[in-house]
Amino acid sequence: MQKLQRIFAQTGADALFLEQDFLRRYITGFYSTDGYVVYDGKTCTFVADLRYFEAAGDALDGSAIRVVEGSFDRALSLVAGCKTLGVPYPFVSRAACARLEERGFALTDCMPALREAMKVKSAFELDCIARACDMAEEGLLHTLPRIKEGMTERELAAVLEYEMRMQGADGTSFETIVAFGKGSSVPHHETGDTKLKFGDVVLIDFGCKTQGYCSDCTRTFLFGDDGRHEAFKKTYAAVLEAHERVKETLVSGMTGREADAIARDLFAAKGLDQYFTHSLGHGIGLQIHEYPVLAPRGEEVLTDGMVFSDEPGLYFAGEYGIRIEDSICLENGKVRSFMNKTAHGLLIL
Amino acid sequence: MQKLQRIFAQTGADALFLEQDFLRRYITGFYSTDGYVVYDGKTCTFVADLRYFEAAGDALDGSAIRVVEGSFDRALSLVAGCKTLGVPYPFVSRAACARLEERGFALTDCMPALREAMKVKSAFELDCIARACDMAEEGLLHTLPRIKEGMTERELAAVLEYEMRMQGADGTSFETIVAFGKGSSVPHHETGDTKLKFGDVVLIDFGCKTQGYCSDCTRTFLFGDDGRHEAFKKTYAAVLEAHERVKETLVSGMTGREADAIARDLFAAKGLDQYFTHSLGHGIGLQIHEYPVLAPRGEEVLTDGMVFSDEPGLYFAGEYGIRIEDSICLENGKVRSFMNKTAHGLLIL
Repeated sequence: MQKLQRIFAQTGADALFLEQDFLRRYITGFYSTDGYVVYDGKTCTFVADLRYFEAAGDALDGSAIRVVEGSFDRALSLVAGCKTLGVPYPFVSRAACARLEERGFALTDCMPALREAMKVKSAFELDCIARACDMAEEGLLHTLPRIKEGMTERELAAVLEYEMRMQGADGTSFETIVAFGKGSSVPHHETGDTKLKFGDVVLIDFGCKTQGYCSDCTRTFLFGDDGRHEAFKKTYAAVLEAHERVKETLVSGMTGREADAIARDLFAAKGLDQYFTHSLGHGIGLQIHEYPVLAPRGEEVLTDGMVFSDEPGLYFAGEYGIRIEDSICLENGKVRSFMNKTAHGLLIL
Repeated sequence: MQKLQRIFAQTGADALFLEQDFLRRYITGFYSTDGYVVYDGKTCTFVADLRYFEAAGDALDGSAIRVVEGSFDRALSLVAGCKTLGVPYPFVSRAACARLEERGFALTDCMPALREAMKVKSAFELDCIARACDMAEEGLLHTLPRIKEGMTERELAAVLEYEMRMQGADGTSFETIVAFGKGSSVPHHETGDTKLKFGDVVLIDFGCKTQGYCSDCTRTFLFGDDGRHEAFKKTYAAVLEAHERVKETLVSGMTGREADAIARDLFAAKGLDQYFTHSLGHGIGLQIHEYPVLAPRGEEVLTDGMVFSDEPGLYFAGEYGIRIEDSICLENGKVRSFMNKTAHGLLIL
């Protein structure tokens, strides 16, 4: 509630009016596909329709949040005396804004204040993310022995998602990317029906959710060594070096640009930076991509409690790609990785 | 392209400017997590960043759609001479609108025209949805023998999602709902760690995607009959009667309200309508919830080629709930169900 009060004060509106799934969850901890959270500086109200009213009442019983039954009109009635409503500009639709403006409300953006609050995680949030990371890594460890020649990318994704679920995950945090062979050279390869062959490069970018919080992980390995992987192995060592260098030298107080430069400069020194076609990392929380941004344009300062990915990668179109990604956080000024269960060195199955 | 031309003409803007995943996919057939589709009435351009440029070029080679590399600024350069841009008001953020308005563009809503086009499916789209429905039903059929006493809701969801994936699905179309016992009385129950007991009601609401298109299905059954299910069985028969009555009597030309009334009136005649706490159905396509709306407020006319759910349900708080849902479409004036592989009559495992 203290956090909410700060967001409210920073926004400077008469009330916060939130209808986004992940923001409702952030404020209330309760998950629903519909509903409104209204905060007028004194009372926080969750407006749930009939589908959620019972469950929300149970979940928020004893909390500082009041649950009332209804929909948009009920939420509106709670802000009847207000002039200005805080809504999150990057996540509120033009249509939703129009519905409020037609009723005479002025709008202001509450996302800068929310983002400021959300990018530094609470102990509860760090714990959720750590558990989501455990589930992802354990899921991979249970999957590795089930990888067989001839299986498709989609089948491997099916097994991995199943194993993450069996570890307790509520679902994936994004569409699982499984790429065999030259598919790995496409950073956002679409998992398809390509069959696994001996000697293939395998790139898996995956993650899961628990209590709404995401994990994000990428591993690249070989399915057997056909003896034609000298260039690959050299490149793998370079990507791993960049990945580890970030963990070792990134400290609180650096900007996202400086963090990105740790990997980018290392690649540049090896003449490989042109193949590093994306940024080093992104914030992770209730959304798989949030703040801070670890990229050449990242001017924000990284501080303790922030969670983000460390994912350097090199891509050789039509040949292969390599990415090694952990979800990490800053703690006592230094990097703590949430992912220490799976191998980072080159794995040859 | 003819469809796109009609959407363009109906919108009345100088260009369409689309940055939403599902709309990019609708226009181009290509999936990406970022990018822009710009159509100025003559040329349709897909603006892809480095991550997607290669794959988009391959996928759209030979199509009427031009692929160029870049991001927001590149997309902007394509509409340099335009005054008015068509953007989808319900799906474009306030922040994205501001970025365009700051540069002097006037905006207009292209979603009414898009929605009009999208709610009537092409043969290709109907085929995708039919395949997504097959994968969902086959997934369930492979799951049923694996349901065991003591397994959790989450484990059942894991098995079902795995089996849908093994049928070729690209992922789920929404978060799988598995509810055991009284959890079934909550229409949007959150799948959890409740263990399956002999005699439990089991409600599963699930679906998957292929090529972006969704399926949506719900089945309710008993895990063993403990002899205390007389009321449940009677209610099940009523829900099934409503579900089947819709399939038999819904015809093209009815409104969404009239379709909803088929089920609602039947429940009312039995004194059960107060337990039917949601609407009969919703359109299904690239999004799991789209137009038309089959509800008391649904004034749109239902026509051939529309795809939607038929999902009457009755919920008794703290006791049990029953929902029977198929994805169906209108063809030659009548209902065709995409879901004929799984039992609709009461299943007792």
